[in-house]
Amino acid sequence: MAYQYILDGIYNEVIQIENTGKVADYIPELAKIDANKYGIALVDKHQNVFTKGDALEKFSIQSISKVITTSLIFSKIGNDLWERVGYEPSGNSFNSLVQLENENGIPRNPFINAGALVVADLMLEHFENPKAFLLDFVRELTENPNINYNENVAQSEKAFGYRNAALVNFIKSFGNIKNEPVAVLDFYYHQCSIEMSCVDLAKCFQVFANNGVIPKSDKKFLSTSKCKRMNALMQMCGFYDQAGEFTFKVGLPGKSGVGGGVVAVFPNHYTVAVWSPKLNKKGNSFYGLETLERLTTETSLSIF
Amino acid sequence: MAYQYILDGIYNEVIQIENTGKVADYIPELAKIDANKYGIALVDKHQNVFTKGDALEKFSIQSISKVITTSLIFSKIGNDLWERVGYEPSGNSFNSLVQLENENGIPRNPFINAGALVVADLMLEHFENPKAFLLDFVRELTENPNINYNENVAQSEKAFGYRNAALVNFIKSFGNIKNEPVAVLDFYYHQCSIEMSCVDLAKCFQVFANNGVIPKSDKKFLSTSKCKRMNALMQMCGFYDQAGEFTFKVGLPGKSGVGGGVVAVFPNHYTVAVWSPKLNKKGNSFYGLETLERLTTETSLSIF
Amino acid sequence: MAYQYILDGIYNEVIQIENTGKVADYIPELAKIDANKYGIALVDKHQNVFTKGDALEKFSIQSISKVITTSLIFSKIGNDLWERVGYEPSGNSFNSLVQLENENGIPRNPFINAGALVVADLMLEHFENPKAFLLDFVRELTENPNINYNENVAQSEKAFGYRNAALVNFIKSFGNIKNEPVAVLDFYYHQCSIEMSCVDLAKCFQVFANNGVIPKSDKKFLSTSKCKRMNALMQMCGFYDQAGEFTFKVGLPGKSGVGGGVVAVFPNHYTVAVWSPKLNKKGNSFYGLETLERLTTETSLSIF
Amino acid sequence: MAYQYILDGIYNEVIQIENTGKVADYIPELAKIDANKYGIALVDKHQNVFTKGDALEKFSIQSISKVITTSLIFSKIGNDLWERVGYEPSGNSFNSLVQLENENGIPRNPFINAGALVVADLMLEHFENPKAFLLDFVRELTENPNINYNENVAQSEKAFGYRNAALVNFIKSFGNIKNEPVAVLDFYYHQCSIEMSCVDLAKCFQVFANNGVIPKSDKKFLSTSKCKRMNALMQMCGFYDQAGEFTFKVGLPGKSGVGGGVVAVFPNHYTVAVWSPKLNKKGNSFYGLETLERLTTETSLSIF
Repeated sequence: MAYQYILDGIYNEVIQIENTGKVADYIPELAKIDANKYGIALVDKHQNVFTKGDALEKFSIQSISKVITTSLIFSKIGNDLWERVGYEPSGNSFNSLVQLENENGIPRNPFINAGALVVADLMLEHFENPKAFLLDFVRELTENPNINYNENVAQSEKAFGYRNAALVNFIKSFGNIKNEPVAVLDFYYHQCSIEMSCVDLAKCFQVFANNGVIPKSDKKFLSTSKCKRMNALMQMCGFYDQAGEFTFKVGLPGKSGVGGGVVAVFPNHYTVAVWSPKLNKKGNSFYGLETLERLTTETSLSIF
Repeated sequence: MAYQYILDGIYNEVIQIENTGKVADYIPELAKIDANKYGIALVDKHQNVFTKGDALEKFSIQSISKVITTSLIFSKIGNDLWERVGYEPSGNSFNSLVQLENENGIPRNPFINAGALVVADLMLEHFENPKAFLLDFVRELTENPNINYNENVAQSEKAFGYRNAALVNFIKSFGNIKNEPVAVLDFYYHQCSIEMSCVDLAKCFQVFANNGVIPKSDKKFLSTSKCKRMNALMQMCGFYDQAGEFTFKVGLPGKSGVGGGVVAVFPNHYTVAVWSPKLNKKGNSFYGLETLERLTTETSLSIF
Repeated sequence: MAYQYILDGIYNEVIQIENTGKVADYIPELAKIDANKYGIALVDKHQNVFTKGDALEKFSIQSISKVITTSLIFSKIGNDLWERVGYEPSGNSFNSLVQLENENGIPRNPFINAGALVVADLMLEHFENPKAFLLDFVRELTENPNINYNENVAQSEKAFGYRNAALVNFIKSFGNIKNEPVAVLDFYYHQCSIEMSCVDLAKCFQVFANNGVIPKSDKKFLSTSKCKRMNALMQMCGFYDQAGEFTFKVGLPGKSGVGGGVVAVFPNHYTVAVWSPKLNKKGNSFYGLETLERLTTETSLSIF
Repeated sequence: MAYQYILDGIYNEVIQIENTGKVADYIPELAKIDANKYGIALVDKHQNVFTKGDALEKFSIQSISKVITTSLIFSKIGNDLWERVGYEPSGNSFNSLVQLENENGIPRNPFINAGALVVADLMLEHFENPKAFLLDFVRELTENPNINYNENVAQSEKAFGYRNAALVNFIKSFGNIKNEPVAVLDFYYHQCSIEMSCVDLAKCFQVFANNGVIPKSDKKFLSTSKCKRMNALMQMCGFYDQAGEFTFKVGLPGKSGVGGGVVAVFPNHYTVAVWSPKLNKKGNSFYGLETLERLTTETSLSIF
């Protein structure tokens, strides 16, 4: 595939669309990002990297981190994970408490905030130094030792995070959080604050395109079955209440973050990451979705 | 692929699992089916047919018909369809009214009952003789001129169908049903009463595995993009509030019916239909799901 | 009490307030009413009648009829009634289906539409000729043999009543409607179509102010305890999701109808009926509520 | 009225009913109370005190305190209160988050936990030393200088109060809490920990039976209109999702607490307090409700 040619073409097309999205501004650290950034990186199955635009600039991955923590804990404890969190799409927005109340504190899936907080709680339970462990793992996947938490972002989220504080206390009232709310939130805000570039992100997700094997080291991180399930989860739950639309239009498993990043996985073919900070009304990158829809349509390649 | 060998193996394995499901008994016509029936049919991309068990016996396809009517109306009116019905998973059971009330009478997707009733309404709107038209189309896809409506089943559903009558009146109160409730229900109960065998069903869905082309005639029924979207819809919404579980465990687009049928599509590879009347608590065939989970696990082939 | 003086004063005050309400227009028969009608009638415990404005003109009592049918069936079957319908405020709008779904087809109370339909079903079950029986009873209470159903209104409601058709079918799907939906709706639309004046209405509700005794005949229609409970029901549930506001501002049990009528009961003191067709956003008569709030404030008399 | 005779009779009747309730055990301090305690105190309009059983023993008033704080803040800021909290019954259980989510952080009424937390926030806003102020006020109403907070209970509630922590953070995420969650919770847990006897409680609520005047000092604490509204609030919202049942069976404004206390107000007649720690499934004192239902039935006196 002439991926570079395709990326160039899509980039030039998308950049001419009026971007009606808005940068997330609930914390100052995210609000001050240059709204016009736009980058794409694609890594094919031979680990060739194709880029366009601001593909080397770091941004806050935010909710995309949920896929990484979930895969770590799934790899560690296996199907016990599903006693603490479900794998059904939520049908609601990302921080809804209604479903939790009706379903006794078991979040629908690990990619809504409630579920990610339960996963964070499990990380504290199962890893000695979870913050260091997570960072090491991300550096391994991205082959980039300079990946870090952004402490300002983490502190800022904490200062304004009343909704997440509500979620974690609420889940704890049902007994489905074992650690102290403050500790769970601290880990969660750190995982969300990780910064990387499109290239890092596309590399990071190669493990899911590669049957669970980390390409560089050839280490089997996830069994084939677990890897398939991670992709299924991304397919069903990666885009909050826009999961259907993403599946419908893009047809690939993926995950978005409020920092404007989107990553998608075409098993056995490629991973692709897009970054553009302006978000549509559902909280997903406006250009990110436009880019990926074009990619699968123009290559006529999707999982369907 | 040695499909016959695989089907034989799976069949022999599954038949030894205790089937804790229950036959649907809300209408007498479904309740009187032999609960122990179990058949599998797989049609590969060269139209080779592989069968095992009761694969030639007819059963009531019920909700599986929703895929066929949706594809007909999508083919006819294109994206106008999505002004009347969504393409997001519902996160609720198949006949819930709650979401409709919150979302002003626009059903979440065409595969929950509410959405299928809107599609039925559109069939009445856009085809002169929709019952005959649908039957002709199904006969064409299955290459079987003996496919028919089962009038007893249709009448029986009508006699007990207070929930569907509630749905159609409720949607009409929002203005999203144009015809008279009685006419919409009559068409809907007929489409659900269609009877076919596993072989018919696997053939019928070949069009979705074949980029929208009907294999026998080479006629392009759906554009590639529309075909991809039909598969995406099945992936996200084919199994009510068990959609996540099916995607997670099976990893293929598919659709189930309360008559015990399940059909799945592996684009560019095969279609497979299973029939076993005992249903799990979510209303999907217990053996059907066991069969398909094994099929994708043992072949290591799924879309993910 | 100088009731005439008080009514005159309130009338003159209220009529100068800008009426921001809107006449109900979901059926043509209601829409064509003169929006500026405004009448008040108060009947004291000695059956003295005080009137002001359009107090002798007939209007459609609509939901106010629910109090009458409920009292009839409560008088007939006693506490068995509460196995079919609750006595808790709904906290939702008058025709919501959400609660029904969560509570298995048992409506919260008899004054929301769902509950009134169950009461209508009970009327069909327990009275031979319920339409004639109801009319006779209303004529007895109002001492007015000219009270009638308005067939045009009843037919018009039926023609547009998809929401009520949804409700009755939905409740029947839970088994809490015994008769055919069509028959239940026919009775229900007739009861709502009863027409009477403010004077008729205030007389009609005297039985609830008089410990269950019909003043004219001295007949004990309801036991003291049942009468108290009817008033409690009106207090808690008489104004849909504005019940709290009415209790808060007016402090009397009462009931409103979409035809612009409101009636309130001050046990052992008086009944009062107001008619003004323009409704506030919650579907209660704008002037009606203004009038009653002034009445209890200026007389310093309420149940609290 | 021969109140002593009536109380004696009811007490002897009720004590023979099998008490199927259960003592609240979510914190150890409440769980260790003697489950068989049962006391009644009635204060008539001449301030005569009638008692029976354990009427002089102190217990934790818990949610009953919500009426007192609400009246303080209503007296202080008037109708501005209703911009922060509603006055409609909730139709849901006392600590539900669902409604809050749908209604943008404005609790339905001040007597559900969410509403009481907003009132607590207002107390911090409008009084310099709100804890001391509240205690002084309660001592004034009860004429008992020995009323105190129970620090053990307050600390224990705090240690287990994840649901309330969820509520206050959730409301703050909507902007309807101004102070820090920790400070609001501290005040809230203190107000709930106030201890008093049935006699204290019946005296404390005399102000609501007496048109807002404190009997001892003849001080006008609430205007007549505000007092009427406090009673209306208790009528509609005093018993969570059992408000209808209480109104229906008892027919008086009142409030219950999880410590087993119930208080009711018959304006211009009496106040009555009952204490019995075993609670029914809705969280209201089992004997408390039995006692009050008998009281209004046997005296034939209620507001209806």
